[in-house]
Amino acid sequence: MTYETLVLTVADRIATIELNRPEHLNSITSQMVDELVAVFAQTNDDPDVRVVVVTGRGKAYCAGADLSGGSGSLDAEERGWAEEIDEFRDGGGLITLNIFASTKPVIAAVNGVAAGLGATMLLPMDFIMAAESARFGFVFAKRGIVPEACSTWFLPKKVGLSKAAEWFYTGRMVSSAEALDAGLVRSVHPDDELLPAAYALAREIVDNTSPVAVGMIRQMLWRFASSDHPMDAHRVDSRLNYELGTTPDVVEGITSFLEKRPPRFPGTLPADAPASYPWWSEPTF
Amino acid sequence: MTYETLVLTVADRIATIELNRPEHLNSITSQMVDELVAVFAQTNDDPDVRVVVVTGRGKAYCAGADLSGGSGSLDAEERGWAEEIDEFRDGGGLITLNIFASTKPVIAAVNGVAAGLGATMLLPMDFIMAAESARFGFVFAKRGIVPEACSTWFLPKKVGLSKAAEWFYTGRMVSSAEALDAGLVRSVHPDDELLPAAYALAREIVDNTSPVAVGMIRQMLWRFASSDHPMDAHRVDSRLNYELGTTPDVVEGITSFLEKRPPRFPGTLPADAPASYPWWSEPTF
Amino acid sequence: MTYETLVLTVADRIATIELNRPEHLNSITSQMVDELVAVFAQTNDDPDVRVVVVTGRGKAYCAGADLSGGSGSLDAEERGWAEEIDEFRDGGGLITLNIFASTKPVIAAVNGVAAGLGATMLLPMDFIMAAESARFGFVFAKRGIVPEACSTWFLPKKVGLSKAAEWFYTGRMVSSAEALDAGLVRSVHPDDELLPAAYALAREIVDNTSPVAVGMIRQMLWRFASSDHPMDAHRVDSRLNYELGTTPDVVEGITSFLEKRPPRFPGTLPADAPASYPWWSEPTF
Repeated sequence: MTYETLVLTVADRIATIELNRPEHLNSITSQMVDELVAVFAQTNDDPDVRVVVVTGRGKAYCAGADLSGGSGSLDAEERGWAEEIDEFRDGGGLITLNIFASTKPVIAAVNGVAAGLGATMLLPMDFIMAAESARFGFVFAKRGIVPEACSTWFLPKKVGLSKAAEWFYTGRMVSSAEALDAGLVRSVHPDDELLPAAYALAREIVDNTSPVAVGMIRQMLWRFASSDHPMDAHRVDSRLNYELGTTPDVVEGITSFLEKRPPRFPGTLPADAPASYPWWSEPTF
Repeated sequence: MTYETLVLTVADRIATIELNRPEHLNSITSQMVDELVAVFAQTNDDPDVRVVVVTGRGKAYCAGADLSGGSGSLDAEERGWAEEIDEFRDGGGLITLNIFASTKPVIAAVNGVAAGLGATMLLPMDFIMAAESARFGFVFAKRGIVPEACSTWFLPKKVGLSKAAEWFYTGRMVSSAEALDAGLVRSVHPDDELLPAAYALAREIVDNTSPVAVGMIRQMLWRFASSDHPMDAHRVDSRLNYELGTTPDVVEGITSFLEKRPPRFPGTLPADAPASYPWWSEPTF
Repeated sequence: MTYETLVLTVADRIATIELNRPEHLNSITSQMVDELVAVFAQTNDDPDVRVVVVTGRGKAYCAGADLSGGSGSLDAEERGWAEEIDEFRDGGGLITLNIFASTKPVIAAVNGVAAGLGATMLLPMDFIMAAESARFGFVFAKRGIVPEACSTWFLPKKVGLSKAAEWFYTGRMVSSAEALDAGLVRSVHPDDELLPAAYALAREIVDNTSPVAVGMIRQMLWRFASSDHPMDAHRVDSRLNYELGTTPDVVEGITSFLEKRPPRFPGTLPADAPASYPWWSEPTF
């Protein structure tokens, strides 16, 4: 698949997705929504990809929705997004629900301003790493709309209710330092050290752990983090480890441990996913 | 409506609720429970109110339940609260469920000691700002009862399970500095700078963002923060922004952004709430 | 009951459980799983126990599953754990679900390395206190399996999604300082001051608060922390405090407060649990 608004490259089992409308601060068009949905499906299905890194070309990460259409820019009917309310699905949510479903860890390398959907699309990524010059803007209420991309679900889980409320109610821009302090951002780096740091973290995952195990863990974490009772996890722990306990990855995991050498796991996703995966039924829209 | 145990004033689109039993450290009587339930219904319904600030008159914020009745002070039958267990509803919960349902952001300005229900009533407020001399006491287990006002639901969401456990199991008084460090408190201020700081935050919300958007966000945040799946948010994101996308607030939000000037949003709550609000059915007692 | 893999002692209303396979770094066998399940049932049923402290004998806290069986060590059928996937229940989950259900607060005193199940068994404990030399390893993906003991449910609730993801995806060892910073650990102590600090916290609970109230709070906290709506807590707040309001513990709690003296609560668990407890129906496996 070819993309016009982004660039996908895969090397050393790490995929890099670059938002590629630098002349427009990587602001988001309908085409870019479609391509972002597609590219995460592609990385998820590619056995050569173990970790995904997302960044922006040029000085911005992503300036959010393209408002160059003026005061009708968010009018769904005028914009041709849907004719009826029942037919309309927020494009940001299509992106973030797709990232949520990924079995490959996702690292954001936020190289500059991330505003609106540029900020909310980060939330289902596992690690948000930021350049010192990065800034985050949950600006929706300044425009008269509510935050999208399921961000009222994701953000309080990352920074707590009170900080999420402050950022959403004021719409103010947030520095990388404040975002680090609040727990939104994993780490802040000098601008020219951001991508090397992101790849170092990706490499630590690739070199040390089973892709099948990590893929299952990613879905367990994001789904059980908000479940009501630990029994939900106990059922899945039991079934997955019963299945995984006899796989070549476990043989290699134990053997390499006993031999005190780095592991070389043969398994890949999606081919080697346990039969119990997926263990949930996805809710309908 | 007139109140005897508190004072309500509205100015510059900000409501201030002052607990007003300073001679009793603003300790809570049945009348004050009723008036607190009523006053949040009033601010919620008042289109002139965009943000609510809550504080205490005198040196205390609120010393909790009035125990001047002696060892029978918490005996529901003796106190005439209810004759049967099935008829009894915790008064603290009536207050906090009502604050939970507010579409206006609520800022606590904790000017002194906040103990028992004085502490737990703060938890559904969006921002807890504290004077240096403020102290917090989740003292219930010292009296032999369990925390009320839904506080075992709210507190771990703000400070985590372990910190909530420590405060509840020991009943110890917590300084404003410890409360800040734990994430209960947004910010600590010299005593005479507390109210100005609370009004400055209120003002930042009033001056920059749409009241309709903020009201919807408040309910999204508090309800989706603990929901199990982001699809819950995606459905509401889609419907609300479909409806909001054509409103005068959005026209003003985009236009003021493109003209690089402060916005003047015409919308108010509750009049301009989208038809999709409320999107939930409230659970029964 | 006698134990071979651990030692239980009760003194001054505090139970101490010591993992007792120091020559094997307290690594976990099937027998130790059974004994850990049994010992928490015993402390829960013992009215003389108000708080439980868990620690390891020797230099390690617990090195996790015993892998001395080689590459088949995690093969459930080969190990005789279960012949069919439907019959297999993760032993770690049996331990942590049992700790989850405790009405006595649990303090971990992590005296050294805690890896695999040695780390995940800590998560349902209320307070994780660590020696400076302690280290934590969520090493599962290095062995090719997924984390067990409901840890993908517990860990993100303690340290957030991003930190949990990092520890699980890399499998790296985590220092006590990093664990403190992330919120996993309540406090870090010089190695020889760890147990005294754990007993000091236990003592603060025992000396100041009602065992019945604390037991109910423990279940409220762990169950409502992840529930979707505060009404779940409101119902239980109302019923429990209606029942507790007339108990000898409340009479003593109010009287000691008004007399400004330490309380001497007569109640114990499980004998004096309110009739409304348990208020939930436990999910089946």
